Amino acid sequence: MLPAPLSGCLFCRIAAGSEPAEIVLDEPHALAFVDVRPVFPGHCLLVPRAHTETFTDLPADDVSPFFTTGQRLARAVERAMDAHGTFVAMNNKVSQSVPHLHLHVVPRRFKDGLRGFFWPRRRYADAAEQSAVADRIREALRA
Amino acid sequence: MLPAPLSGCLFCRIAAGSEPAEIVLDEPHALAFVDVRPVFPGHCLLVPRAHTETFTDLPADDVSPFFTTGQRLARAVERAMDAHGTFVAMNNKVSQSVPHLHLHVVPRRFKDGLRGFFWPRRRYADAAEQSAVADRIREALRA
Repeated sequence: MLPAPLSGCLFCRIAAGSEPAEIVLDEPHALAFVDVRPVFPGHCLLVPRAHTETFTDLPADDVSPFFTTGQRLARAVERAMDAHGTFVAMNNKVSQSVPHLHLHVVPRRFKDGLRGFFWPRRRYADAAEQSAVADRIREALRA
Repeated sequence: MLPAPLSGCLFCRIAAGSEPAEIVLDEPHALAFVDVRPVFPGHCLLVPRAHTETFTDLPADDVSPFFTTGQRLARAVERAMDAHGTFVAMNNKVSQSVPHLHLHVVPRRFKDGLRGFFWPRRRYADAAEQSAVADRIREALRA
């Protein structure tokens, strides 16, 4: 059973047809539409139809349909925009403008000027610091 | 059957144990390790064990195990690093430093200074331009 759409949620309203959007893909479990403020033209958002806040909230049974649809969308965006590749990303809670899971699919071209999220990169002070961080993550994975 | 590891591929060598890495998660289908040049400490990369170049190359049967493991990793990174959220992303071909699919999982905190990939954003000149882009993507999805 799908959770009830949230009337206060922009993406639930788009899914319900009560808010306009350039929908490019409309499936029982998900839909995709053009981001009105693209990083590059053709930038789309894929959202699950059922209100789901973040990546980690997506039920296990929905993971495969959602991301295989994401693959289809990524192929289509790349081809449609004569791109060389794509950037596919989710912001979870921080920098997430709408608290309804959305997979960004952004067409990329070589030398398109996007430095992406890769700057600035840091380095660990030493191997011990890196190892301590890894230990914390290993422990959290066991919990 | 798994594709043979590529000896020239850094991530295949890490998966084979012939290149050192702080591995935090080691499963039959995938492994995760700490990125040596993190955006923020705790930044991890999840890679399929079988050599797979990009998101769209991941076989349909592997999509669910890969991304449900990504969910586990995202939860663990967030908890381990006392983060408020995560940034989860893939560069496909463009800005992809190693041509072996890797899901970046980056811990995020509010006001952490990361402007992310969201800058600069553009606007379509008008609704007609946006609609024309949507048409191209719809057509590519039908192809």
